[in-house]
Amino acid sequence: MIDLYTWQTPNGEKPVVMLEECGLDYRLQMIDLSSGEQKTPEFLAINPNGKIPALVETIGGVPHAVFESGAILVYLAEKTGKFLPASGPARYDTLSWTFFQVGGIGPMLGQWHHFDAAAPEKIPYAIERYRKESLRLLGVLDDRLKGRDFLAGDYSIADIIHFGWVRAGLSGLKNDSAAELTSLAAWVERVGSRPAAKRAIEKLDQAKRAKTG
Amino acid sequence: MIDLYTWQTPNGEKPVVMLEECGLDYRLQMIDLSSGEQKTPEFLAINPNGKIPALVETIGGVPHAVFESGAILVYLAEKTGKFLPASGPARYDTLSWTFFQVGGIGPMLGQWHHFDAAAPEKIPYAIERYRKESLRLLGVLDDRLKGRDFLAGDYSIADIIHFGWVRAGLSGLKNDSAAELTSLAAWVERVGSRPAAKRAIEKLDQAKRAKTG
Repeated sequence: MIDLYTWQTPNGEKPVVMLEECGLDYRLQMIDLSSGEQKTPEFLAINPNGKIPALVETIGGVPHAVFESGAILVYLAEKTGKFLPASGPARYDTLSWTFFQVGGIGPMLGQWHHFDAAAPEKIPYAIERYRKESLRLLGVLDDRLKGRDFLAGDYSIADIIHFGWVRAGLSGLKNDSAAELTSLAAWVERVGSRPAAKRAIEKLDQAKRAKTG
Repeated sequence: MIDLYTWQTPNGEKPVVMLEECGLDYRLQMIDLSSGEQKTPEFLAINPNGKIPALVETIGGVPHAVFESGAILVYLAEKTGKFLPASGPARYDTLSWTFFQVGGIGPMLGQWHHFDAAAPEKIPYAIERYRKESLRLLGVLDDRLKGRDFLAGDYSIADIIHFGWVRAGLSGLKNDSAAELTSLAAWVERVGSRPAAKRAIEKLDQAKRAKTG
């Protein structure tokens, strides 16, 4: 059985979409970030970095943990043979764009959100630094999607890993220059219209409400 | 033939160490970041994100590009069958720690360096934010290495991807709390004493000097 430890965030949503796309059985184990459940000894034994998501699959009675959303997506792709070509150029195109999310889109949009909305003081230099870099990175994706339906050939983990972050990014850019990112906005619609994406968003939402009351 | 487009930075060093460890033939193509060579149309055709490193392997006359250091390490590991187990728990331990570098150690130490040394103004909140998170992440690695020689079983891409960043991080922490990170410091010595790591550092240094004069 697969247990997915997660919460309703852009990183926490990725493996839920993937599990739904793959049609795998799993249990959602909600880790309430607002009460610090990601820093309990029980959770740190699964992911010593104290961050969601993490996945534990028990095979033959032996639990095995995978953490970091990118590693979880690769694990599930290789387990099922889905959404990541097994070899050849298409495999490494997919991995190049997957790592682009982990090293770029994720941390830069995350820092932008922090300085724009969460930090206790407004620091114009930092807000502008991350807004500008986030726009640049989203622009790279927008260019990539001109004339393409998906980031790397067929729908893949490269799309799944970007979906929640790009959706949040475009939403935060409503009154900014986002209107120019038309290929990216069309891609969000395309990915978001998939039944598995809809189910994932709905299940996470229900599980969070069940947990927090 | 493999062409590696890179520069003398922690990210740029990773694939050089890997190529040396794998004993592969390659050409170093130095992309001078100080003159903006990573933003030329020629380089953007290889990596649309305009960042080093990127690798191009020409097979049967057809060039194929891989970008993002994490994707390049996985590519070379799967090409050679080295430094990343082909299956099983050890593979996903290795990938979990590999993605931990890409999503955590890299961006957070990078932002710390920016606000501490490169930004035009000193912003105490931002310096402390990234110093604290960098120390926390380096502490996670230090804990992981207590009683272990390497991050995930045998020496692997999880070690190679961390080496340059951790070396730089510990060096920047000389007069800070770094003295407590003894397991991590011992690991830097262990990885740095490998002949391939020494060759990689020396080759990059020579190639940079040859390019900048």
